[in-house]
Amino acid sequence: MDRISQTWATAADGHAPVRFADACLRGAGQVMLQNNPVTGLLILAAIAWGAIRTGTAEVAVGALVGLLAGTGTALLLRVDLASWRQGLFGFSPLLTGAALPTFLAAKPLLWAYVVLGAAVTTVVTLALSNVLNSWAVPALTFPFVLTSWFLLMGAYQFMRIGAGALSRPALPATTSPESAHVSLTFDFLATGTLKGIAQVFLLDDWISGAVILVALAVNSRAVALAAILGSAVGTALAIGLGAEATAIGKGIWGFNAVLTAIALGAVFYRPMPAVAVYTLLGTITAVWVQAALTTVLAPYGIPTLTGPFVVATWLFLLPKRHFAPIPHHKRHGDGTMLTTTAAAPPHGS
Amino acid sequence: MDRISQTWATAADGHAPVRFADACLRGAGQVMLQNNPVTGLLILAAIAWGAIRTGTAEVAVGALVGLLAGTGTALLLRVDLASWRQGLFGFSPLLTGAALPTFLAAKPLLWAYVVLGAAVTTVVTLALSNVLNSWAVPALTFPFVLTSWFLLMGAYQFMRIGAGALSRPALPATTSPESAHVSLTFDFLATGTLKGIAQVFLLDDWISGAVILVALAVNSRAVALAAILGSAVGTALAIGLGAEATAIGKGIWGFNAVLTAIALGAVFYRPMPAVAVYTLLGTITAVWVQAALTTVLAPYGIPTLTGPFVVATWLFLLPKRHFAPIPHHKRHGDGTMLTTTAAAPPHGS
Amino acid sequence: MDRISQTWATAADGHAPVRFADACLRGAGQVMLQNNPVTGLLILAAIAWGAIRTGTAEVAVGALVGLLAGTGTALLLRVDLASWRQGLFGFSPLLTGAALPTFLAAKPLLWAYVVLGAAVTTVVTLALSNVLNSWAVPALTFPFVLTSWFLLMGAYQFMRIGAGALSRPALPATTSPESAHVSLTFDFLATGTLKGIAQVFLLDDWISGAVILVALAVNSRAVALAAILGSAVGTALAIGLGAEATAIGKGIWGFNAVLTAIALGAVFYRPMPAVAVYTLLGTITAVWVQAALTTVLAPYGIPTLTGPFVVATWLFLLPKRHFAPIPHHKRHGDGTMLTTTAAAPPHGS
Repeated sequence: MDRISQTWATAADGHAPVRFADACLRGAGQVMLQNNPVTGLLILAAIAWGAIRTGTAEVAVGALVGLLAGTGTALLLRVDLASWRQGLFGFSPLLTGAALPTFLAAKPLLWAYVVLGAAVTTVVTLALSNVLNSWAVPALTFPFVLTSWFLLMGAYQFMRIGAGALSRPALPATTSPESAHVSLTFDFLATGTLKGIAQVFLLDDWISGAVILVALAVNSRAVALAAILGSAVGTALAIGLGAEATAIGKGIWGFNAVLTAIALGAVFYRPMPAVAVYTLLGTITAVWVQAALTTVLAPYGIPTLTGPFVVATWLFLLPKRHFAPIPHHKRHGDGTMLTTTAAAPPHGS
Repeated sequence: MDRISQTWATAADGHAPVRFADACLRGAGQVMLQNNPVTGLLILAAIAWGAIRTGTAEVAVGALVGLLAGTGTALLLRVDLASWRQGLFGFSPLLTGAALPTFLAAKPLLWAYVVLGAAVTTVVTLALSNVLNSWAVPALTFPFVLTSWFLLMGAYQFMRIGAGALSRPALPATTSPESAHVSLTFDFLATGTLKGIAQVFLLDDWISGAVILVALAVNSRAVALAAILGSAVGTALAIGLGAEATAIGKGIWGFNAVLTAIALGAVFYRPMPAVAVYTLLGTITAVWVQAALTTVLAPYGIPTLTGPFVVATWLFLLPKRHFAPIPHHKRHGDGTMLTTTAAAPPHGS
Repeated sequence: MDRISQTWATAADGHAPVRFADACLRGAGQVMLQNNPVTGLLILAAIAWGAIRTGTAEVAVGALVGLLAGTGTALLLRVDLASWRQGLFGFSPLLTGAALPTFLAAKPLLWAYVVLGAAVTTVVTLALSNVLNSWAVPALTFPFVLTSWFLLMGAYQFMRIGAGALSRPALPATTSPESAHVSLTFDFLATGTLKGIAQVFLLDDWISGAVILVALAVNSRAVALAAILGSAVGTALAIGLGAEATAIGKGIWGFNAVLTAIALGAVFYRPMPAVAVYTLLGTITAVWVQAALTTVLAPYGIPTLTGPFVVATWLFLLPKRHFAPIPHHKRHGDGTMLTTTAAAPPHGS
């Protein structure tokens, strides 16, 4: 394994196409804040599997097109090469590319929308990183969220795009006891929790979730643990508070909790008991923010995407100067805010 | 009086429980930007009176629980102790604790919501203060507003919380001449203006308003004057422009104006004729922003809370470098933005 | 010509009323980011012509009142005189003054609303400039947009203002093929594109658009070219994507593209091939953001105003540190962010 990764690292240093492939693979990994091409490769496999299995192959194609277009646009804009090589310009466009075919009807113009959307996501990544540098917090997936919200909401105004698969715009209504009724079987809980991990990539498939969990464990077991616990907390909270049952079963209440738990509990703060409690509070907040944003977006029929993760993580990263036990630990990857992960490259360069 | 306060100050310095009680009392005062435990005590009395009188004792309990939980969470997060002792971590959680039982149905889970909401409000206070430090403006009550908006909007998604006492979500509609009709009696104007002060704490009770006015005068007569004038301006403007009459009578158009008038006219700028004119414009702006936010939030059925005060005050504090007569005066409490009030502690430490 | 402008410059230096008139004229020019009193004069003529021709003289009166009130308020607030003389405190209040009579019913109180709105716009200009200075980007027309959104949304709550000419609040709906049907005649395209320029000032009149184009060419032919190309791109994109045909014919899909193309392609970056491509992407983004904001604002029945221009331009200015070919060129007018234009005064002071 070490030999292969050494060979790969040397090839990436010496050959532009390999370097580009490496940046793209790391970009896939960076959706989960992991700077590791093997993690990225496994994640791409999970996306392909999940998309084909659920009969939505265009989502996998969109993710790949977004990843390539976004990473390529960044090269054209001559971004900081060290950040680029870590995949930091790939993860948001990948998600934009996955989201558009998921929520819009697949018409010919959709694919121009995806390519242009990925390019704009890269510009937005640079813009938001510049703004957020003032407080030393990363943009996370917000470039994806902002760009995709614009593109999805704009679709109503353009007949040749159209808001095909979006929810029907409606004023918010209280969840009824009937729709909140769940049967607490092991199967429901286990698949819901694994799907919560897969839903980071908009996939309703528990096997994809399991593969992504393996992909995380390849890079860091702490991260994999945070992911599964985060999904469990999000799902359990949704059941306990009485969220709509169908959504729970699809893992909808897991994915923002997964990302928040990884970010706070295993990447930006050093794992320790106080951080675990703080991360739990942050993860609960992500679930609340998801509920609130679901209400806010109901009149527009568009999804929260990973907005709740971003809001909750920002709120729990920003106090860091004041959070006494933290400042003493060196935050991984500090220096440039485009370095959103701490893990050293697996091939030790 | 001086002797008592001296004794209290000494006790607060030497004994942790007294120090905690002192921070909580000052926290109650800081809702009105006053750093004074006597003001805080009178305000707590006004809350208790008003809540019991209007048959909503749970609002007073919520305020107290929020105050204690928020102040306690800040200790656990090891915040800056000087700011903590001034009550700067108490006022927003107090309001979160008062708002949730006011607008949500009182189910068992509500109280977990209140405690957790107060804790999150403290984290949000740290986060927003860090962001706003860049421009040397305070977070004011925005941590309360943001957290409570999240919690109230989220309630729709959770059957076991439920949006009980919120307004019915609806598209905005123009106020009709009938609903805007008011009888301009002395009684209507006087109780409306006093209730405008009480509504800072969500209380529909004019005696509470009068007690709070006394509480302010204990610390600063200029502040009390700003409060009553602010409420009068807000109420008069709402009558003049033709707002809904029932809301005017309850003091709904007063409370944001009260807080804005105090902040601009008596705390952050030194009182003088030019500042009085500027404060009047700012107070009028707060009323406008309240009208706008009422429209924005209509589809969600949730209240503006003190959001309009925060927006208007930020807009009128941010130009301060350019507002020629102001920079020459020392702004009270500068240095840390968590110091949101200028008044020296009444017991001269 | 040079003699006249020399005489004017001398008069402005020596006489307060001429200086005020000069600042107002430049303020009219600054709506299009041009610091030139002749450009401003022609723009004011275009506004007068268009407003009278479309039977909405109150819009021209509002624009003038806003320009005078805003520029005057800035004097009272003792703002930076160099910025003031460049018209940087005139353009946003001018637009506020034009927008309010356009969208609200003309009742007596409207005019108090306009004057107060212009004054508040000036305060908001100072506030936002202070915030945005942190990233060296200008506030653009956002003070106008924010203030007018507040004033328009607030109108629902006040019977004596009323939301007269606003759209009917409604949940967003997909554009139908029928309403998107356009006849691609030369007349439709030519007047639509020219109206796109006039709509910056809320005017549905192609002759006004032509006059404004001349006004721009007086100061800079590159700016005039960017304006007409921007309007063409916006209009073509709206036709291609299938936007509502009536709106396209009125130039509604042109004005945000016009301003974005001017800002990115001819003012803040030095014109060159790479910048042209970047500007094209930014202009397309402005059209998307306009579609998205149209959806967001549908439940409130209020227009996007120039919000999409501001958002798109900010997103494409903020990455400037990273956009390799740009940092080497001196950005015009840097130093104070209130200097939003680069063009040297035509009378060479």
